Amino acid sequence: MKDSGKISPSVIRRLPRYYRFLSNLEKAGVSRISSKALSEKMGVTASQIRQDLNCFGGFGQQGYGYNIKDLKTEIEGILGIDHKCKIILMGAGNLGRAVATHMPFDELGFELIGIYDAAPLFTGLKIKDLPIKQMDTLGDFCRLHKPQTAILCVPDDSAKELVAQLYKLGVHSFWNFTHYDILTDFPDALVENVHLSDSLMTLSYQIKCNF
Amino acid sequence: MKDSGKISPSVIRRLPRYYRFLSNLEKAGVSRISSKALSEKMGVTASQIRQDLNCFGGFGQQGYGYNIKDLKTEIEGILGIDHKCKIILMGAGNLGRAVATHMPFDELGFELIGIYDAAPLFTGLKIKDLPIKQMDTLGDFCRLHKPQTAILCVPDDSAKELVAQLYKLGVHSFWNFTHYDILTDFPDALVENVHLSDSLMTLSYQIKCNF
Repeated sequence: MKDSGKISPSVIRRLPRYYRFLSNLEKAGVSRISSKALSEKMGVTASQIRQDLNCFGGFGQQGYGYNIKDLKTEIEGILGIDHKCKIILMGAGNLGRAVATHMPFDELGFELIGIYDAAPLFTGLKIKDLPIKQMDTLGDFCRLHKPQTAILCVPDDSAKELVAQLYKLGVHSFWNFTHYDILTDFPDALVENVHLSDSLMTLSYQIKCNF
Repeated sequence: MKDSGKISPSVIRRLPRYYRFLSNLEKAGVSRISSKALSEKMGVTASQIRQDLNCFGGFGQQGYGYNIKDLKTEIEGILGIDHKCKIILMGAGNLGRAVATHMPFDELGFELIGIYDAAPLFTGLKIKDLPIKQMDTLGDFCRLHKPQTAILCVPDDSAKELVAQLYKLGVHSFWNFTHYDILTDFPDALVENVHLSDSLMTLSYQIKCNF
């Protein structure tokens, strides 16, 4: 494997999509695919596929195609999803519960080890066999189990204080569903934002422009 | 307002974020802000803000700043969120329920008018005062109420058939939480994908690179 530090961010952004298509092909029993066939399935040019995949070793052989299993393993390594990173969920409201039950964490490089919510009403209820815990136990839990990452599904107005608390406890990476801008206060944090309202507004724009 | 067709896609992608910041400022009672102050809040350069906002009319006055209400109204117009587009939710599982309860549709240019799920178990249950309906009533509903947009929160393997059905019924825009690649089969559809697993894999990559 080439040093993944040298792969451009735009290629990295595209890797999860390659990974999804390759996983589906593997599940369907396909073992090899040409860049042309893959390009037709993915709706990008074969030349883009060859360029992207050549960035990390060029698994394709002229006239022979890509070995799907090898390529998938390679992408797993680059994305780091072959190692499990401990993650905790903050906020067990509608969105938090959906994320906890919907996401196949173990297939994506994570192990969900704890769920917290400020509402005493939820304490002890289970999601995916994990009990929802009270916030006052968060410190001890983090010192003992050392989660690296937190999913933020809390109200926007409590996010800032919560991130400060988590940061002190050694949690420095965040899958952020709130609108709190973590990097403004913690420029060294690793952050992936999911701004659902931005996404829906972008769709609104597309629809408006089409009328 | 300038013709929004001439605004570059990258500026459009940034508009929802401006909109969010301006909304928060307005809620906090702020009426004017300089590009410098806005840039500090948003973590982008003042020059980028001036360039972006000049694309559609240049509401800022030298030494006087932007009128927040006017700018917000302008962005609402560009994004089309001042008009309400009828949207239906397909799939009332964990994710669908979270999306239906969590999203302030009316603030984002949409009106949620119907919820459908294939599971008879859910039929009649209400989410946000809307009853979950049976799939066999979808055709009549669409002919009567003419929704333009559907939110897809169904399992991946049922998405293709469902989109084909919706397309025939006049629903041509999709907020897609599935991994089905709508544009491959319907290149004219308007699609905004939310690929949560891609987002989490991207975070995994960031974490891996930081060790």
